[in-house]
Amino acid sequence: MGVEAPSKSPTPSFLDRIQSESRILPFVKYQGLGNDFIMVDNRDSLEPKVSPEQAIKLCDRNFGIGADGVIFVMPGTDGTDYTMRIFNSDGSEPEMCGNGVRCFAHFISELENFRGTRRFTVHTGAGLIIPEIQNDGQVKVDMGQPILAPQDIPTKLPANKGGAVVKAELVVDGVTWNVTCVSMGNPHCVTFGMRSQVLQVDELKLEQIGPKFEYHEMFPSRTNTAFVQVFSRSHLKMRVWERGAGATLACGTGACAVVVAAVLEGHAERKCVVELPGGPLQIEWREEDNHVYMTGPAEAVFYGSVPL
Amino acid sequence: MGVEAPSKSPTPSFLDRIQSESRILPFVKYQGLGNDFIMVDNRDSLEPKVSPEQAIKLCDRNFGIGADGVIFVMPGTDGTDYTMRIFNSDGSEPEMCGNGVRCFAHFISELENFRGTRRFTVHTGAGLIIPEIQNDGQVKVDMGQPILAPQDIPTKLPANKGGAVVKAELVVDGVTWNVTCVSMGNPHCVTFGMRSQVLQVDELKLEQIGPKFEYHEMFPSRTNTAFVQVFSRSHLKMRVWERGAGATLACGTGACAVVVAAVLEGHAERKCVVELPGGPLQIEWREEDNHVYMTGPAEAVFYGSVPL
Repeated sequence: MGVEAPSKSPTPSFLDRIQSESRILPFVKYQGLGNDFIMVDNRDSLEPKVSPEQAIKLCDRNFGIGADGVIFVMPGTDGTDYTMRIFNSDGSEPEMCGNGVRCFAHFISELENFRGTRRFTVHTGAGLIIPEIQNDGQVKVDMGQPILAPQDIPTKLPANKGGAVVKAELVVDGVTWNVTCVSMGNPHCVTFGMRSQVLQVDELKLEQIGPKFEYHEMFPSRTNTAFVQVFSRSHLKMRVWERGAGATLACGTGACAVVVAAVLEGHAERKCVVELPGGPLQIEWREEDNHVYMTGPAEAVFYGSVPL
Repeated sequence: MGVEAPSKSPTPSFLDRIQSESRILPFVKYQGLGNDFIMVDNRDSLEPKVSPEQAIKLCDRNFGIGADGVIFVMPGTDGTDYTMRIFNSDGSEPEMCGNGVRCFAHFISELENFRGTRRFTVHTGAGLIIPEIQNDGQVKVDMGQPILAPQDIPTKLPANKGGAVVKAELVVDGVTWNVTCVSMGNPHCVTFGMRSQVLQVDELKLEQIGPKFEYHEMFPSRTNTAFVQVFSRSHLKMRVWERGAGATLACGTGACAVVVAAVLEGHAERKCVVELPGGPLQIEWREEDNHVYMTGPAEAVFYGSVPL
């Protein structure tokens, strides 16, 4: 078959583009509990190789690579080993991302060919973060101290227990929920249910109720909301409605906030397994240093290269 | 920093896996109007390199590569140049896919380093398909003849015009719609609106109305439904509810059915531009051979390799 082209040159092939265009971006796609990222080796510069506008295109799940964000591994700053920056799929730049930082740590161990347990210091928009690769490949991350003062979360609900908002009443659409408010750098409203009712998280209509918490007048910067079911004093199950993102498979900071809230309400011990739709996280709110430690998986899914 | 591992070997790195595992799949991700596919060079065998179970995992948008399906370029059968097979993201195998076959043709031209206009014969589950790469990179595909006999579509609506179901009344939730029924190998119900009302497709609540057409008792094998707005006799705009897939960015066979229906109802000429949410397609229902020709884009997005 095959009718050959007339003299004029046709559309260049992908191979032509890969070979001729100056900007081909190699990347590795990672996921942590289903939260997925395009990882970029940016160790030679503090200037991201991808602009926020390009990140929006690359993150598009039909027309691009598809991801929740682009994460850059950069040289250390202020004496740290590395710097982490993230562009979200909408081009915005968050301070930090709990699932992202686990992927970040794993990607570094691939890049540097590290083996076994290894920790390093990472400069992020939320300050110093110290992830540690465990021998089993899981990553433990010191997520810092929870913030409990209402004005710092922020919430307009008044403190009712040692300066914190614990099991406070919040009326949503005429129904009174009990909520505890915790910030892990971003605001979380955590609820274990209504006064007399235990939450069955699988039966929750998250799409309907989530936005009503997110935009509730008690949360001037809006809020993430975690709905939690207690299976035992060390086993919790949660579903999360993320501010600006809706129902997601996992939220690392949310899982941390849930354990802090569970301890404050007396439901659980300081060390819990938190089940999220994307999989489990181990969370510990350590008494000695008041820091929250999150341990969970991160996985390389595939290698790729894309013209920019 | 960095605490070295104890003697026991840790989790193997991705590089280790890429190097040690026997099955690394190279692929190219393609998209046509936002309908996206993992393209696999399977020219050495009629045995797909990926199983339906693996296709489900690879198509997962959070835990895998993310795609609507996996398409295999295979050796020709029955004297054709190539064979095309597709596994959908749910592991099922459709006969054909209009957007997929454009990506298929483009991918072949990359693999074979073809330049300019080129046509070849492809064996598919829906029979012989002949895509043709145009000089501008667009792909024209002969989609065959439309099927209009009610029992072959299938629909229980009676034929009312030359053996076809044209502008027939269909009551959906108490509202009477006018519909024309066309099969392009798969069933399509096409509507330009209710009796006295012109459809404003952007205002349509597709998620609500789509399933009511899909499961309507008049369609024993369920149906795809196209909602169409006529801008001129050669410019139509459609939104589509796909059987089993819901609202999608594009449906190649649906766009073909829309032009056939528009001609049968007297709204348009035989050659139209059909605007879909993912972009435009050129459709021609040729009088000489009664075949429908679809012309549209296909684009390589990125190269990758993934362990199986």
